[in-house]
Amino acid sequence: MKISVVKNIMEANQRIAEENRRRFSEKKLLVINLMSSPGAGKTSLLEKTIQSMKADFRVGVVEGDIQSTYDAERIGQTGVPVVQINTGGACHLDSNMVQEALKGLDLTQMDLLFIENVGNLVCPAEFKLGEDFKAMILSVAEGDDKPLKYPLMFHESRVLLINKIDLLPFCDCDPDLIEERALKINPQLTIFRVSCRTGEGLDRWADWLRNQVKQRK
Amino acid sequence: MKISVVKNIMEANQRIAEENRRRFSEKKLLVINLMSSPGAGKTSLLEKTIQSMKADFRVGVVEGDIQSTYDAERIGQTGVPVVQINTGGACHLDSNMVQEALKGLDLTQMDLLFIENVGNLVCPAEFKLGEDFKAMILSVAEGDDKPLKYPLMFHESRVLLINKIDLLPFCDCDPDLIEERALKINPQLTIFRVSCRTGEGLDRWADWLRNQVKQRK
Repeated sequence: MKISVVKNIMEANQRIAEENRRRFSEKKLLVINLMSSPGAGKTSLLEKTIQSMKADFRVGVVEGDIQSTYDAERIGQTGVPVVQINTGGACHLDSNMVQEALKGLDLTQMDLLFIENVGNLVCPAEFKLGEDFKAMILSVAEGDDKPLKYPLMFHESRVLLINKIDLLPFCDCDPDLIEERALKINPQLTIFRVSCRTGEGLDRWADWLRNQVKQRK
Repeated sequence: MKISVVKNIMEANQRIAEENRRRFSEKKLLVINLMSSPGAGKTSLLEKTIQSMKADFRVGVVEGDIQSTYDAERIGQTGVPVVQINTGGACHLDSNMVQEALKGLDLTQMDLLFIENVGNLVCPAEFKLGEDFKAMILSVAEGDDKPLKYPLMFHESRVLLINKIDLLPFCDCDPDLIEERALKINPQLTIFRVSCRTGEGLDRWADWLRNQVKQRK
């Protein structure tokens, strides 16, 4: 009984995710589902990435949080359109929430859409939203054991951004070990080492992203 | 339909949590449910706390992880009894998992039991396990906006440990703001600022905890 309910929820999510996917494809829009633990730097990465991309591309953002509009206000200051989803307790976004949020965005005026998921290294990895790919951020302050303990997120992601590398001298964290463990789970991962605070490594990530958007057109 | 299923799950969890609670009370055992984001320092705090307490009290640990026995192996090296729960995907512990884990521990030989929850700032706050109280850790690397965005965990916790304060000079995080925002959600919170890396602040936490265990006897 319990299993059949869960299955129905996942099937319904999958169906709506495919509807979202079709809409995004029609508009030739690149859509990225951005995931991480709380405080790994999703919103900071978006701020920096938008600043770097917005001269060349039209960017939009869907912000997911349990409550508050704090992140949407931060993103709004970059000047790009943003819609906030409040999940009201739920620990991840699902495809239906995203479909609702899309009503507030003009997709015909957009090349690149970021969906910032709820801060959670577990559940968001299970839910397709209709994105082209998932990208995850891991802060070096979280430690190099995270691929061992939260493998699904590493498995489902196309990109891993190892963030806060400016903190490496002050943390017991080996970024080579993160990469080795992550690639063992998912050999296709593209990995960037960045610091949103110092800006280190962000150019390489932005260049890669520019190519992804261009390939879409 | 969906709502009634969720309600049944929560009722079943509550009933088993009360059974656990009765067993703990009979043994005059202090039980702490330790929660945080991934990588905020739960296992490191336990290692340090056990080292400091084990001369005076008999300590035990239940380790909760989605998979792996990495944390239980770390705790095992301190010499105290430890049982690992693997949730197999679930993003939080529930009372039934803990009841199963208790079969592996001799509660008559214990004064203090830590239950280390899955790393997740959202869902663990919703599930009672039978503990005396919940304690949460927030790493300063996660930022001072976390009480605004994940209020339930701050609301449900009796203790907030602000960890990694050695990183404060290198993070855009104001610990006074964390305290102000956390106390607004939960004025009863007892707050400690600590660094598991340098040891700063850990004595105050251990002294407080000693008193809690003594009051139980």
